[in-house]
Amino acid sequence: MKRVLILAAAASAGCWAQPAPDCQPAPSNAAGALYPCIHSDLRVTFRMVAPDAHKVLVSSNNTDGGIKGPIELVRDGSGAWSVTVGPVVPGFHYYWYVVDGIEVSDPSSESYFGHNKELSGVEVPEKGTDFYDVKDVPHGDVRTHWYRSKTTGAWRRAYVYTPPGYDRNANARYPVLYLQHGANENGSSWSRQGRAGLILDNLIAAGKAKAMIVVMETGYASQPTAPFGPAPAPAPAPAAAGSSPSAFERIVLDDLIPMIDGTYRTVADREHRAMAGLSMGGAQTLQITLSHLDKFSWIGCFSAPIRSFDAKTAYNGVFADAAAFNRKVHLLWIGAGTAETAMHDGAKTMHEALDKAGVKNVFYESQGTAHEFQTWRRDLADFAPRLFR
Amino acid sequence: MKRVLILAAAASAGCWAQPAPDCQPAPSNAAGALYPCIHSDLRVTFRMVAPDAHKVLVSSNNTDGGIKGPIELVRDGSGAWSVTVGPVVPGFHYYWYVVDGIEVSDPSSESYFGHNKELSGVEVPEKGTDFYDVKDVPHGDVRTHWYRSKTTGAWRRAYVYTPPGYDRNANARYPVLYLQHGANENGSSWSRQGRAGLILDNLIAAGKAKAMIVVMETGYASQPTAPFGPAPAPAPAPAAAGSSPSAFERIVLDDLIPMIDGTYRTVADREHRAMAGLSMGGAQTLQITLSHLDKFSWIGCFSAPIRSFDAKTAYNGVFADAAAFNRKVHLLWIGAGTAETAMHDGAKTMHEALDKAGVKNVFYESQGTAHEFQTWRRDLADFAPRLFR
Repeated sequence: MKRVLILAAAASAGCWAQPAPDCQPAPSNAAGALYPCIHSDLRVTFRMVAPDAHKVLVSSNNTDGGIKGPIELVRDGSGAWSVTVGPVVPGFHYYWYVVDGIEVSDPSSESYFGHNKELSGVEVPEKGTDFYDVKDVPHGDVRTHWYRSKTTGAWRRAYVYTPPGYDRNANARYPVLYLQHGANENGSSWSRQGRAGLILDNLIAAGKAKAMIVVMETGYASQPTAPFGPAPAPAPAPAAAGSSPSAFERIVLDDLIPMIDGTYRTVADREHRAMAGLSMGGAQTLQITLSHLDKFSWIGCFSAPIRSFDAKTAYNGVFADAAAFNRKVHLLWIGAGTAETAMHDGAKTMHEALDKAGVKNVFYESQGTAHEFQTWRRDLADFAPRLFR
Repeated sequence: MKRVLILAAAASAGCWAQPAPDCQPAPSNAAGALYPCIHSDLRVTFRMVAPDAHKVLVSSNNTDGGIKGPIELVRDGSGAWSVTVGPVVPGFHYYWYVVDGIEVSDPSSESYFGHNKELSGVEVPEKGTDFYDVKDVPHGDVRTHWYRSKTTGAWRRAYVYTPPGYDRNANARYPVLYLQHGANENGSSWSRQGRAGLILDNLIAAGKAKAMIVVMETGYASQPTAPFGPAPAPAPAPAAAGSSPSAFERIVLDDLIPMIDGTYRTVADREHRAMAGLSMGGAQTLQITLSHLDKFSWIGCFSAPIRSFDAKTAYNGVFADAAAFNRKVHLLWIGAGTAETAMHDGAKTMHEALDKAGVKNVFYESQGTAHEFQTWRRDLADFAPRLFR
């Protein structure tokens, strides 16, 4: 039996070669790990030490425009397998190895929650782009906050970004953006894969966005117990709780918003409350905000699955009186990447139908990106500056 | 090729059997995952779906008193492999599967950083013990905070626990505990595996510990770039930076403490500053605090490797004048589990030598626990209430 996943063993065995001089370790790697590394032309070299393996592949989902897999790695004399792929579309891409038919995470990578499990990920920098980098600007904190949900009867954890200066300006109150992840991700995804906090830090420092609180929760009612939390609460969940959209809607309206307004220095009204989400989270955003315009007046829908759209009847006819909707809603923002055809078509359909119906909306296209976080980072960077003006 | 690591596929294939009625999903599992599960007698059932595998084992390190491995799983007709082990010592235990000779993480588990990589972990509840559970008490936040290190020239992330009421009591200032992880873990370990924030929440709510800020950093200077952070800073690290203990010492003294005191509402003096750490972090704590008693007056050493100890000469003779030391240092706390023989012997040796030399100290033994987080949770629960009195 070989312990193929131990970095230290690989290093001490002398088989941990230095990467090519032009190949920089991906910033998504575990600290100190040299692979995967990114070449200056955005090719990516993967390397896996597995002396006893017979076949090693690297794979990914094929919807994000990144690593197309599975791709075979080639063994060298020391038992290390490697392959160089790409150039790869900049952004964050989940990946995994398949070693003799078994999917394994890469011990060189941090774990990122996606596909409803912990996955490896590779961050491919975009040249000339630094809006999501850590820069010499004041930084907000991303806090994890426990709270009890009446809807599910269990404890949950929210991720809460508080902007730079929140602690110093003890009397200031802030507007709030509720920001939701996609299917099979969780409340950590926007901070980690999406770098939402860093994007806000940079926008706020540049004077492009207002200082705001950003709340990132896990968009499921059926998975109330937070990761690495306690045993499930003994109280049974009320019968209405479940995995239906309406159960999460109840959590947002009955549990999350009151907790946030009671815990953080928010401006607790619809004029200062936004919601946005990506993919499944975009659909949840439309569902929740459009049926509760008394609670929200700023709306962002990133790469949501929209198949058909009738401005007269959609969302219980909320758009039917365009003038009334335009008076009430300060921003209806719809975006998609040009390389995610179905989502892009859906977003465009909705945008055009709204335009035709006289409903004010913003349509944003992320050029050349697919159903992945590079699209959604750009979305956030375009959306957030428009909020609370 | 089988994608053995996909829960959803396993579920839809109908091979995701319900666990035995007395077997509760471990609270460390990914949301919704049923295995590993814990029986009422603290046996643990592991289950892995791998229809095409020929041999599946579950394994762990054998120093933590938990799962002794490798242990073979048995295949059922549906391609699921399972085994029941134990009873297992309560607490948090890293584990991994070995499928046909390849180590793999369990897709049913959250990832926990240990052994310098992301690992699966199983939390085995201790009966009658709830001091680290989420309870109906006010909760502090655990914040991630970016800051730039002059020592390494790179960005780092600290984890900062702010106690309940920190936001409301805008003029209150708080003492600070610097709390370090063990070798090959990182700044997330005390919050996640150790539940430090929950332990403090519960102690503070019960009036047993003073409200304090707890700072958890990654104890390496050679790994300055935080996980899922930006590309390394272009500025070269000063020549003196490196992986030596003194480099981390410089980070703590020159970068971390000034940043914390400049960012959070601390009482910025030695009377209100403590440091503690586990294993490697305990050794770092002794090294840093005992050579900087102008900065620290409360000291905790959890399961540190101590081989020999001479109270006259140790740490540049800081204990040689016992009376002077006792005047200066308010608490010197030494602990170990009774089931981690070497660490326990070392701690006891140090404790007895200090007693003999007239140096006041507290010696704490965690009954029946080994070199793992159950020991260190108990350590923190005994140590924190003694601070800042």
